[in-house]
Amino acid sequence: MKLLKDKIIQDGKVLSKDVLKVDTFLNHQIDPPLMKAIGEEFAERFKDAGITKIVTIESSGIAPAMMAGLVLGVPAIFARKRKSLTLIDHLYTASVHSFTKDETNEISVSKDFVTCDDTVLIIDDFLANGQAVLGLLDIIEQASAKLAGVGIVIEKGFQPGGKMIRKQGIRVESLAIIASLEDGKVTFSEGAAVR
Amino acid sequence: MKLLKDKIIQDGKVLSKDVLKVDTFLNHQIDPPLMKAIGEEFAERFKDAGITKIVTIESSGIAPAMMAGLVLGVPAIFARKRKSLTLIDHLYTASVHSFTKDETNEISVSKDFVTCDDTVLIIDDFLANGQAVLGLLDIIEQASAKLAGVGIVIEKGFQPGGKMIRKQGIRVESLAIIASLEDGKVTFSEGAAVR
Repeated sequence: MKLLKDKIIQDGKVLSKDVLKVDTFLNHQIDPPLMKAIGEEFAERFKDAGITKIVTIESSGIAPAMMAGLVLGVPAIFARKRKSLTLIDHLYTASVHSFTKDETNEISVSKDFVTCDDTVLIIDDFLANGQAVLGLLDIIEQASAKLAGVGIVIEKGFQPGGKMIRKQGIRVESLAIIASLEDGKVTFSEGAAVR
Repeated sequence: MKLLKDKIIQDGKVLSKDVLKVDTFLNHQIDPPLMKAIGEEFAERFKDAGITKIVTIESSGIAPAMMAGLVLGVPAIFARKRKSLTLIDHLYTASVHSFTKDETNEISVSKDFVTCDDTVLIIDDFLANGQAVLGLLDIIEQASAKLAGVGIVIEKGFQPGGKMIRKQGIRVESLAIIASLEDGKVTFSEGAAVR
């Protein structure tokens, strides 16, 4: 997605060969027109998949997930990392390990919102080691829902998550795939998966 | 806001005289067209306030804040409850006490995104004891930014936050003000502040 890649080049900061900071438009400050364009792009790519629900994980997945939901005409659900006061039981839960933070969180989704009648699109801001997506896949399986695929804003193609998930036969659509952050420079992957 | 109040009556669940559960459309599952309408309503109410930035707090404030930002043509920033790996220093921080969870979180906003040149609209999903808004006000003051006001999706009018903040001369626009949750029933406040 050219608009997104231009934004990454323009505003992203390469902090190390593994870490890209995009807090000016994605995961701290949000650029609403860009999120709208991202939502439209996800909706276009999955328009024939019969999606009934979008599932993401708080917090940075919420903006792209809601925008995709707006275009597709379906609700967006965000898995919670901490249990809320009004969301105590009747939950699907899964463990998500963060390699970068070296901690494991339990994520949860109410059983009311994902059921065996649903066809789910998972959306997240980043795909690196794939642990967050694995947790969401676990929840969707517990709910016996159908999976349409996974929509990712920025995939770090040099980390193993994308390959691991595609190997399971799951459709992964990443709007920008980064091949490398070496030498302080963002290099995108070329090929059919990227437009 | 009639659409919102109808939705609260239709889908909200009164769990006790203090707790209203709205996780079908606001803080777990999100109803995108309703969020769009909420964003448009905030934008309409604050259209002449010269707003340059919207500031909210993760996670449930993100959807309404982004939608307001989309209509007003300004970025939306969400204060983080936990520090991210790529957001370590160069931060404004404030403490937010949650009475319901009986815990205090430190929230943070990058100094890059709120400056003395900004006119800020604070948006949040709920206003009850007002602690989250106080934390955001603290950050806006640290940044020497101008405050346009506070936009709240659902205010619990029977709790002290709204009165406390209005007493400081701050404009608070709540789209639905709940007078009482007694007897398992939602009663809205009437008056000029509610449409």
